[in-house]
Amino acid sequence: MKSLLLVAHGSRREASNEEVRQLAAQLGAHAGERYQSVNCAFLELAEPSIPDGIEACIQAGAEEVIVLPYFLSAGRHVSEDIPREVAGKQQEYPGVPIRLAPYLGSAEGITELLLVVAE
Amino acid sequence: MKSLLLVAHGSRREASNEEVRQLAAQLGAHAGERYQSVNCAFLELAEPSIPDGIEACIQAGAEEVIVLPYFLSAGRHVSEDIPREVAGKQQEYPGVPIRLAPYLGSAEGITELLLVVAE
Repeated sequence: MKSLLLVAHGSRREASNEEVRQLAAQLGAHAGERYQSVNCAFLELAEPSIPDGIEACIQAGAEEVIVLPYFLSAGRHVSEDIPREVAGKQQEYPGVPIRLAPYLGSAEGITELLLVVAE
Repeated sequence: MKSLLLVAHGSRREASNEEVRQLAAQLGAHAGERYQSVNCAFLELAEPSIPDGIEACIQAGAEEVIVLPYFLSAGRHVSEDIPREVAGKQQEYPGVPIRLAPYLGSAEGITELLLVVAE
């Protein structure tokens, strides 16, 4: 019973937030048995917040939550803000592991994906 | 003789720009025979600019330049600013096709990549 939470920055432009929501829905459709649920949350400017997103996973029965930063570079948001939000929620629910996955930009496969996009 | 130009937003944080430069270098290493060169350019806050990046490709002998936006959502930068910079340079060099690839966030393979990152 693992839940995946895709965390994006959030934008004033609602269409960008909607893109993230649609991506989370696609992830859910492709995830098969791997996750009980796939949802998204936003660091700022859009809802739900990261704590609210994690809370929803736990309330829905998640026994583990994987938080995946949908970010391209390891700036302050990735290195400080998101870990702090996760740590706060982990303290609140010590019995439910909340694991922070690497951010997208650090994925090894991104090189191959970019070469395919460029074709 | 195609050249690939990875275009990122650019950051005040030099380490983020450096991440992009390293990614371009990795792309070059993985591209094999597909591209004569792989470089990066920045929309703002870092060098080289997009026009300067395209110019360098052409001066190095590129017969085609592929501009790949390293962006996750289709905001104004992707839909207006980058196409405008590309169009300006295309006008300057009508004999060298400058092709704008889809932005990273729109890549079909991103779903599978995210599921791997989350593992």
